Amino acid sequence: MLRFHNLVKLSSVVPFKPSTFPLTSLSLSTSIPKTTIFAIRSQMSSFSSSSSSKLLFRQLFEKESSTYTYLLADASHPDKPALLIDPVDRTVDRDLSLIQELGLKLVYALNTHVHADHVTGTGLIKKKAPGVKSVISKASGATADLFVEPGDKVQFGDLFLEVRATPGHTLGCVTYVTGDASDQPQPRMAFTGDTLLIRGCGRTDFQGGSSEQLYKSVHSQIFTLPKDTFIYPAHDYKGFSVSTVGEEIQYNPRLTKDEETFKNIMANLNLSYPKMIDVAVPANLVCGVQSKV
Amino acid sequence: MLRFHNLVKLSSVVPFKPSTFPLTSLSLSTSIPKTTIFAIRSQMSSFSSSSSSKLLFRQLFEKESSTYTYLLADASHPDKPALLIDPVDRTVDRDLSLIQELGLKLVYALNTHVHADHVTGTGLIKKKAPGVKSVISKASGATADLFVEPGDKVQFGDLFLEVRATPGHTLGCVTYVTGDASDQPQPRMAFTGDTLLIRGCGRTDFQGGSSEQLYKSVHSQIFTLPKDTFIYPAHDYKGFSVSTVGEEIQYNPRLTKDEETFKNIMANLNLSYPKMIDVAVPANLVCGVQSKV
Repeated sequence: MLRFHNLVKLSSVVPFKPSTFPLTSLSLSTSIPKTTIFAIRSQMSSFSSSSSSKLLFRQLFEKESSTYTYLLADASHPDKPALLIDPVDRTVDRDLSLIQELGLKLVYALNTHVHADHVTGTGLIKKKAPGVKSVISKASGATADLFVEPGDKVQFGDLFLEVRATPGHTLGCVTYVTGDASDQPQPRMAFTGDTLLIRGCGRTDFQGGSSEQLYKSVHSQIFTLPKDTFIYPAHDYKGFSVSTVGEEIQYNPRLTKDEETFKNIMANLNLSYPKMIDVAVPANLVCGVQSKV
Repeated sequence: MLRFHNLVKLSSVVPFKPSTFPLTSLSLSTSIPKTTIFAIRSQMSSFSSSSSSKLLFRQLFEKESSTYTYLLADASHPDKPALLIDPVDRTVDRDLSLIQELGLKLVYALNTHVHADHVTGTGLIKKKAPGVKSVISKASGATADLFVEPGDKVQFGDLFLEVRATPGHTLGCVTYVTGDASDQPQPRMAFTGDTLLIRGCGRTDFQGGSSEQLYKSVHSQIFTLPKDTFIYPAHDYKGFSVSTVGEEIQYNPRLTKDEETFKNIMANLNLSYPKMIDVAVPANLVCGVQSKV
């Protein structure tokens, strides 16, 4: 079981400013404030509950890398705080325009891991929307404003995501899961990155990957969630948009196998070298921009 | 206002058989039962309500034509009756496999219109899953098992879709909208085909298209729905998956304009000839297969 002893608390990190910042302006020439890499956590912080909390949710697709970016916001909170999970550099303008149109206040840009197949949008977002904090796991080894660890909560308004460590595709992979409380979205939603894909999983032959770890991660951290929990992966290549824990327990062609068979499958995928890895990984270790922001 | 005086009633059309048919078997060589083109409607049929109705919903994507196919089912009904909106020929196997895995009983394969950019999957579905009925508007001029008209309801279990005539992209375009009742999904969902796209709309220069009609259709049949109604279009080319009536009323770059400006925009799009039209339209007039099934 996870210990929910840590809390990345919105109000502690980013004071709300009712005035909107220029989300879509291309102010790349302006000086970028140097941000500090830090994590604010309070022990057993109380969770501000509200029965009127309402999740605004959008699934966004980047066609070239078949990447899903997720937008979540607490639409019933006066400030409409929002976060993006796994934004892509080439679709940052689309995402920020949508956020502006919906009247949301983007607070966090999260990554599930250091991606090898596309460049993250977090650095570009921070340039275009100063004040937004980049978030990644401590275990990733990447640069970010906030580092999360297993058991942390990422709070936005009265909603929150739990952080679950799901290494295996990379050493630092995490899964973000919507809260386990009556005022949180039901069914729950798990943003699994490349750990668990719909009827598949991420490869385990690069970036500290381990098929043994991935198997254990999925079985201990994802398949233990309620069966109606929605699975929202970082990619899909066949046009699926969502699955559930129950479906993957029953139909995932790899993870329904025993561990030895799974490891064997993963060891014999004979995949080609990831074409973007030599560009994407170095960039993604620093929020997608080569100069730290 | 629409008159809901017509009802395409599931139980009248396709008797439920608890035994599943071989959804994924490639039984193309078996004899195909000749189906009759008909429409069953009853005046003011009572709506069988159930407070436990639960929509199972999946948005599916076909990458080459950027087409969305929608799967809807009444998951709380013992037979789990399901329908597909705008299936694509090349993703029929994917869709039928998913339906089988989810334990659903596919009853209808609907089209919003005669598509010009891809071949519909309805004919192939009927071959692979005999008993499924193809549905299209009477105004489309296409072959199908059931023809719907404005005001009809397409019922699946205790859930239903309303049919709204939204010509303009083609003469026979309809929008399917989830029911307006307390036991139907909230917010409502509108499957707009090519009539209204996210921040856009379908072209109006082929297949009996009319920019004047499209403008009137959107403003009278879609923009009059509650603002939180979800818009699920037949295509998106930028990676958006959903919008709302409220968003499109505010931000659609074409349909927020006055009618004359809109007509001017549509008359000057200078779009190239649709590359699939000469293949797709003749095929789609007969459910996507050249020999009637």
